[in-house]
Amino acid sequence: MLEKYIRAARRETKADLVLKNAAYVDVFTGKVKRGDIAVVGEKIVGVGEYDGVKELDCSALTVVPGYIDGHVHIESSQLSPEEFASLIVPRGTTTIIADPHEITNVCGMAGCEYIAKASESVPLDVKIQLPSCVPATPFETSGAVLGGKDVEENIVKDYIFGLGEFMNYPGVLFCDNDVIRKLEAAHAAGKVIDGHAPAVYGNDLNAYLCGGITTDHECVTPEEIEEKISKGMYVHIRHGSSTQNLSNAKMMTAENMRRFILCTDDRHAADLKEKGHLDDALRRLVADGIDPVRAVTCATLNAAECYGLKFRGGIAPFWLADLVAVDNLKNFNAQYVIKDGKLVAEKGKPLFDTSKRYLPENVLNTVHVKTLAADDFVLKINSDRAKAMTIEPGGVVTGCEIVDVRHENGDVVVKGTDLLKLAVVERHKMTGNIGKALFKGYGLKGGALGITIAHDSHNIILLGDDNKAMADAANRLREIGGGMVLVDSAKGEIHSLTLDIGGLMSSRDAESLQRDSRALIERAHALGVKREYEAFMSLAFLSLAVIPKLKIVDKGLFDVGKFAFTDIEA
Amino acid sequence: MLEKYIRAARRETKADLVLKNAAYVDVFTGKVKRGDIAVVGEKIVGVGEYDGVKELDCSALTVVPGYIDGHVHIESSQLSPEEFASLIVPRGTTTIIADPHEITNVCGMAGCEYIAKASESVPLDVKIQLPSCVPATPFETSGAVLGGKDVEENIVKDYIFGLGEFMNYPGVLFCDNDVIRKLEAAHAAGKVIDGHAPAVYGNDLNAYLCGGITTDHECVTPEEIEEKISKGMYVHIRHGSSTQNLSNAKMMTAENMRRFILCTDDRHAADLKEKGHLDDALRRLVADGIDPVRAVTCATLNAAECYGLKFRGGIAPFWLADLVAVDNLKNFNAQYVIKDGKLVAEKGKPLFDTSKRYLPENVLNTVHVKTLAADDFVLKINSDRAKAMTIEPGGVVTGCEIVDVRHENGDVVVKGTDLLKLAVVERHKMTGNIGKALFKGYGLKGGALGITIAHDSHNIILLGDDNKAMADAANRLREIGGGMVLVDSAKGEIHSLTLDIGGLMSSRDAESLQRDSRALIERAHALGVKREYEAFMSLAFLSLAVIPKLKIVDKGLFDVGKFAFTDIEA
Repeated sequence: MLEKYIRAARRETKADLVLKNAAYVDVFTGKVKRGDIAVVGEKIVGVGEYDGVKELDCSALTVVPGYIDGHVHIESSQLSPEEFASLIVPRGTTTIIADPHEITNVCGMAGCEYIAKASESVPLDVKIQLPSCVPATPFETSGAVLGGKDVEENIVKDYIFGLGEFMNYPGVLFCDNDVIRKLEAAHAAGKVIDGHAPAVYGNDLNAYLCGGITTDHECVTPEEIEEKISKGMYVHIRHGSSTQNLSNAKMMTAENMRRFILCTDDRHAADLKEKGHLDDALRRLVADGIDPVRAVTCATLNAAECYGLKFRGGIAPFWLADLVAVDNLKNFNAQYVIKDGKLVAEKGKPLFDTSKRYLPENVLNTVHVKTLAADDFVLKINSDRAKAMTIEPGGVVTGCEIVDVRHENGDVVVKGTDLLKLAVVERHKMTGNIGKALFKGYGLKGGALGITIAHDSHNIILLGDDNKAMADAANRLREIGGGMVLVDSAKGEIHSLTLDIGGLMSSRDAESLQRDSRALIERAHALGVKREYEAFMSLAFLSLAVIPKLKIVDKGLFDVGKFAFTDIEA
Repeated sequence: MLEKYIRAARRETKADLVLKNAAYVDVFTGKVKRGDIAVVGEKIVGVGEYDGVKELDCSALTVVPGYIDGHVHIESSQLSPEEFASLIVPRGTTTIIADPHEITNVCGMAGCEYIAKASESVPLDVKIQLPSCVPATPFETSGAVLGGKDVEENIVKDYIFGLGEFMNYPGVLFCDNDVIRKLEAAHAAGKVIDGHAPAVYGNDLNAYLCGGITTDHECVTPEEIEEKISKGMYVHIRHGSSTQNLSNAKMMTAENMRRFILCTDDRHAADLKEKGHLDDALRRLVADGIDPVRAVTCATLNAAECYGLKFRGGIAPFWLADLVAVDNLKNFNAQYVIKDGKLVAEKGKPLFDTSKRYLPENVLNTVHVKTLAADDFVLKINSDRAKAMTIEPGGVVTGCEIVDVRHENGDVVVKGTDLLKLAVVERHKMTGNIGKALFKGYGLKGGALGITIAHDSHNIILLGDDNKAMADAANRLREIGGGMVLVDSAKGEIHSLTLDIGGLMSSRDAESLQRDSRALIERAHALGVKREYEAFMSLAFLSLAVIPKLKIVDKGLFDVGKFAFTDIEA
């Protein structure tokens, strides 16, 4: 193959593809230059004057290297990897560092393998990070447990690129045996370890980094960024749907700029479709006054260096021909996207087929519960005062409020109050576990909502003011193999949306999924759910026992501050 | 081991070594900061406040990461790797990318292995680049030939770090089969390929880079540097004994600075001893107005990134504890050098023993010639006008002058003229080849000089005005197994200096070797060699058939411009 590149570089033969007369971003010198970019096979072979078998006129466009998303959970889009690619590749993203943490919590290594295999058919490099913290906490029942031994066995596999975000930082600091084993296995395999260490400073940060962890996407303050970069970390500029820290880019200087990279972490399909992916991050950064060439460098060369992706992230001979021709460095509207030397998207539309999706049995039918009855949702409280969970609109931090409760037939009365029942039904191992709590202020009246996305173990989370509606919701979720459900008690109707892949993602196309999803969300608001909440997705974080304050998991009510279970009685 | 690092980072246990209260260069942010640098085993575990089992007061010093020489031929020092380390480690160099091109031309892979094994006993990381062009040209007889198959077999070995400078750029451009095979083997093994492409531009440079070649240490002009960096190359700032391009550093900008690294390429023992190694380069760069932190970054983090050396080249937790405490960022006088966490040099003196040297049989006794007689140096020229070689003082480029010649008994007469006879005697394969030429203007009278260093095949190169003296010189070199020799015809004396390792390097200590070497050089000047020449070393480049203009190899006189042999007759 080298010979083919060399001959074309010398113009002895025509290139396969030439981007004619393109302005292009030279990330190595920080300049915008102009030339014909010649491509043979999957490689750029030269910039200069070239003729190609196929030529694209780029005289009115600016070519940049394909974007690299430094950290993303595909599952957060609720789309299959194929459909996810169909949204982000036309935006200019050609490589992602994907951590299939969610589906691995449900399906174990089968989830990880599914993401890898499903990605093979699309023109997107999906580098799979082995999820490091499955489950995220020992207080809940997850579909799988990846211990030190499992990490040792799997980290060496060819399709595993590195070890995913190491969220269990106390485990590192306290030298938990299994944690050390995981970290050492990754080093032995020569693989990169992503970090996740919000507000860890000083000696604790030193200790965390002694695990050989290299990145952080949780930075927000200037002090934290300065310290983390100073200690050798790469810091992500994050453009998720909820979690954003684009302002991190303001901390870039000439000296430290090579240590900043971009990521999206969690981004919903609607945002991907309507606003975009890293192209939207670039647009926003430039609008915020960041130098466009520098912003592009973060999204390309820097990320490639961070993750050791050689000959990627720049426009130069022998470098991977992952290229995006955009209208300009302000709007970043991608006109052409070239992946591995092939034109794969034009004017925002994918030129690849994603209709045939890889869909193995072992990621389907993941809702394992017995048929539930209204009585299963009876909530007995031995006091007239109880703890109720609350949640800030738009956030994931929950509160705890002490409320007065009434009882009837050994069950707490929620109808006619601003309280709702919340339940987490274990759905992986048929343990029969149901964690129950009270939830205040959400607004739902006359029914139940349910969803099989509940971070990070993804049990069934149910909310309602009617025991039978909650049971019906759970049973419907079992029937459809996971997804979202709404029960309207008054009308006697059950509406649902299937997320067949692990109960987290749909094998359908983004457009029809979103249409149905929006309809279901509207029904929830019609049943009273306040508009300041994301009707279903806000529920998905009520079980995340690593974020304050009061959470509910299948084993009961959890006080994050005390890092222990707690009674519902106040 | 991770556990030990983590506990010390959290101050649960004492660090092994602490550099107390040190100013230090933070290459990640480009700032000079202050703190205690804690070391456990071979790693830095933290910067902050720390106590150590051993502590070094650094309150008056500035700590920088250990320097990385991006490209060096140890052989050019004429010292063994152990002795070489004893000179450069106390200067602050802790890692070198070594290309044992010279000794491999003499001894084949045994030479390469020798450099690797001899380096094991010293506190210096010697990353061995497999020489890519052995021999450098097909026009001379070398001790070894490394073809495509040999490279395939050897590049995969654990001790081989990458493929050495690819000097044969025409071979790349013309897709020579063996060249392509070598390059592809390096890529298949996932190894880095160093470049060497002086004044290659445009499409030819594109083609050269399509070989997947990543560095160049031959850049000199701003245009060349701009183009090479723009095309993804790392550019070396070179501080050799003869070849210098420190001024390349003037081309550094905030945007391109990460693509500059330092190297020495070829540096003599005397310079290493008297002026220094990369410390001297840093001193000079700063004196030239380069920002000291930026200069340090080139010598450390940049080189580590270029060569994919993870967790090296910065002062941060989990990074390799290769540290240099210097007096200041102007003089760069190393007070302490720490390698892999251990204090290995103090106040310019090595704290390690290099008296026991690895000296395998297969790099000794490498001068294989029959006993020569005066008649072997008869030079018959069938014309009264002939081509004579000349050489610029201080350079390696030779000229060609047409001179009148007289004959006597079928031999050209040089006595009493400003001409000398030059001969290259093949010394590897006993071919009996002797290439002969005329050399003008060197000044020697009444004897002969000889040396077994003759780039790149390292045959015997002899210069003299007396056939018998030349034969005596060759015979002495055979006797001593290589080195340098001087024959004083008038006094009937023969003086020599042994370079027992491949005829290139001495197994002795630097000091006594230099003393004897200087004495021999003085004798050469006493015999008339003009002071503007390096009496012996200038001869070593007369056979380098890739540098213009007229060269002499064992197979005859070579016209580099025509890339063909030429007759001596004008």
